[in-house]
Amino acid sequence: MTITKNSIANNLVQLKEKAPLVHNITNYVVMNTTANALLAIGASPVMAHAAEEMADMVSIASALVLNIGTLDNQWIEGMLEAGKAAKKKGIPIILDPVGAGATPLRTKTCWKIIENCSPTVIRGNSSEIMALINEGIKTKGVDSTMSTEDALTAAKALALQINATVVISGETDYITDGVNTHSIKNGHPLMPKVTGLGCTASALCGAFCATNQNTIEACTSAMAIMGIAGEIAARSSNGPGTLQLHFLDILYNLSTTHIEENYIYES
Amino acid sequence: MTITKNSIANNLVQLKEKAPLVHNITNYVVMNTTANALLAIGASPVMAHAAEEMADMVSIASALVLNIGTLDNQWIEGMLEAGKAAKKKGIPIILDPVGAGATPLRTKTCWKIIENCSPTVIRGNSSEIMALINEGIKTKGVDSTMSTEDALTAAKALALQINATVVISGETDYITDGVNTHSIKNGHPLMPKVTGLGCTASALCGAFCATNQNTIEACTSAMAIMGIAGEIAARSSNGPGTLQLHFLDILYNLSTTHIEENYIYES
Amino acid sequence: MTITKNSIANNLVQLKEKAPLVHNITNYVVMNTTANALLAIGASPVMAHAAEEMADMVSIASALVLNIGTLDNQWIEGMLEAGKAAKKKGIPIILDPVGAGATPLRTKTCWKIIENCSPTVIRGNSSEIMALINEGIKTKGVDSTMSTEDALTAAKALALQINATVVISGETDYITDGVNTHSIKNGHPLMPKVTGLGCTASALCGAFCATNQNTIEACTSAMAIMGIAGEIAARSSNGPGTLQLHFLDILYNLSTTHIEENYIYES
Repeated sequence: MTITKNSIANNLVQLKEKAPLVHNITNYVVMNTTANALLAIGASPVMAHAAEEMADMVSIASALVLNIGTLDNQWIEGMLEAGKAAKKKGIPIILDPVGAGATPLRTKTCWKIIENCSPTVIRGNSSEIMALINEGIKTKGVDSTMSTEDALTAAKALALQINATVVISGETDYITDGVNTHSIKNGHPLMPKVTGLGCTASALCGAFCATNQNTIEACTSAMAIMGIAGEIAARSSNGPGTLQLHFLDILYNLSTTHIEENYIYES
Repeated sequence: MTITKNSIANNLVQLKEKAPLVHNITNYVVMNTTANALLAIGASPVMAHAAEEMADMVSIASALVLNIGTLDNQWIEGMLEAGKAAKKKGIPIILDPVGAGATPLRTKTCWKIIENCSPTVIRGNSSEIMALINEGIKTKGVDSTMSTEDALTAAKALALQINATVVISGETDYITDGVNTHSIKNGHPLMPKVTGLGCTASALCGAFCATNQNTIEACTSAMAIMGIAGEIAARSSNGPGTLQLHFLDILYNLSTTHIEENYIYES
Repeated sequence: MTITKNSIANNLVQLKEKAPLVHNITNYVVMNTTANALLAIGASPVMAHAAEEMADMVSIASALVLNIGTLDNQWIEGMLEAGKAAKKKGIPIILDPVGAGATPLRTKTCWKIIENCSPTVIRGNSSEIMALINEGIKTKGVDSTMSTEDALTAAKALALQINATVVISGETDYITDGVNTHSIKNGHPLMPKVTGLGCTASALCGAFCATNQNTIEACTSAMAIMGIAGEIAARSSNGPGTLQLHFLDILYNLSTTHIEENYIYES
């Protein structure tokens, strides 16, 4: 199956029409930029983590994004509460395993979330995905030290093992359910110089999955739109500072024409 | 009583002269942008939440802003400690009931703060204000789903019930003490696409109340200046990304002339 | 000893080559901007605070930055765990005593960190440095109320007492080990209107110390580059909003020529 530019454009239109509420339990570094990206694309973000209100918040949400970037015991408890409620309700759950492999706490927490909440999607960089399949591999903090190609085999195995869609961000983005794999070649080298664009990608996966039950198509749409918006934003940016803002502007203004003219896809 | 453009301009001059220290216990999403907005307008922001230092921090502050956006038990404890100290000291307290109505934890926490700390001002969107008066109404996350006009009746009742000034943000902003109501028609449709501008409005209410004991005039000044700065910023913005920054630039450079030429007020 | 523009330029080249992992336990207000500044200058930032993973995270880091801006008991515990591990490993530790003097909790926490972790560098504004040497001095929140010149004597005494390099940020920046003092006159009056540029300076001290064992030269490089980037960024900024972004762009693009043409140093 090929995911066409038309599908991407239609998914965007659908997202804007439904304006889904996306519940994020994410890290302190990216909360502001994640909320702004979700608003810009047309979703409605909420950030909340207290275990006491997780069931209530999930009850009004259309997707849940769990990001372990600045985890601690209290936040892990909130993630598990929210994840269990989301699983029960049947809404998509996106797990962003930030820094998996860098410390045992991170790798173990990811597996605890996987076992308890059955995430629909896991989106990370190559090192993080490798670390989940092979706990022995050390990552360098939260930035990737491995090529995305090397990680694709691991991603496919992981997808089959846990029955999820796995997304690897990198120069080429891979979206796989273990059987079918799609790849997106959009993006710009300046993007990794802005903190948290990977986290934004996970949040957009949440927004697209909230309005499209075809998970692999939803995630491909999210990654394509990330890359296209980043490319266009980079054209008018002098560095990572201005890129961060132009990215939000482009996300807000992204049109079918932008998608048609820039989409670079390989099945 | 009419609040003239001259009053607004004078309040701004006074704020800049006194540069009040505004103590914020606010949510993770907006801490950076709130601090920057307070600096830009001429106030001195401090963010601190540990119960152990609340009495000491309040002792050097001129206003306290309590925002429940990413609340949990530990932060609620800090808010109550700070709120009690601020009430005792007699400095203005602004409550921003983010997401009130979305979960019982949020609505209950607001009422706990109201009962223990007697806030001077409550500033929220229509849904949040409605939820405070009527716990049965569900909001959609933290974005408003109700017109501000519908909420005005609730706001007046709430203001009289708890002896506070209530501010509703929306296309028209209402500032009411239950008897007198002022409305501001400044602002721009792009503003709700930037996360946390409502939270910024609450922080500016704190800064203006810190330097003007006429609460209703102080809040009207804050809301007018928010709207005027947003309008002017939007003229040179391509989307929500650039708006966020231009807003800070305009806030920093806001002149009497800007106020005179743009202020749209109805008593 | 004089620290030449050539040294500064070489230190920058070295930092970019080594791309050190800098572990930050910092405040919520500045996490995003700190991470972005570290990425822009060529370092690799990680933000993590859970006591459970501090030893593991420090084991892969080349410097540790402890910033008490939004401290509470849980975070203090994380800072002490990380600080002890970093001391044992022998990597540089930078302490940013945000708001020291404003509350006893802050001043006491700084001394607890000093006694347990032996920081390599302390970077603060005049009021904060004064407060550390003399607990009786009250600061006004987190902004400085004292001239940097007045604080230099205190800084030298502190440096000798605790065997650290002390950096005072201000119109003139001072970098002293108690015996030798260097001063940098770069910078721009708009910089204090952006929240957290002091915190960024501490993080850059961490990045430069990670790749240069000559601590006083590393810190002088960090402060010079902060000031130069701020000056250049201010030329194309309309206010603090755009300054924040242009600062990141310039940091990312900073060249030897920028340093040569703008460096203002006094021994």
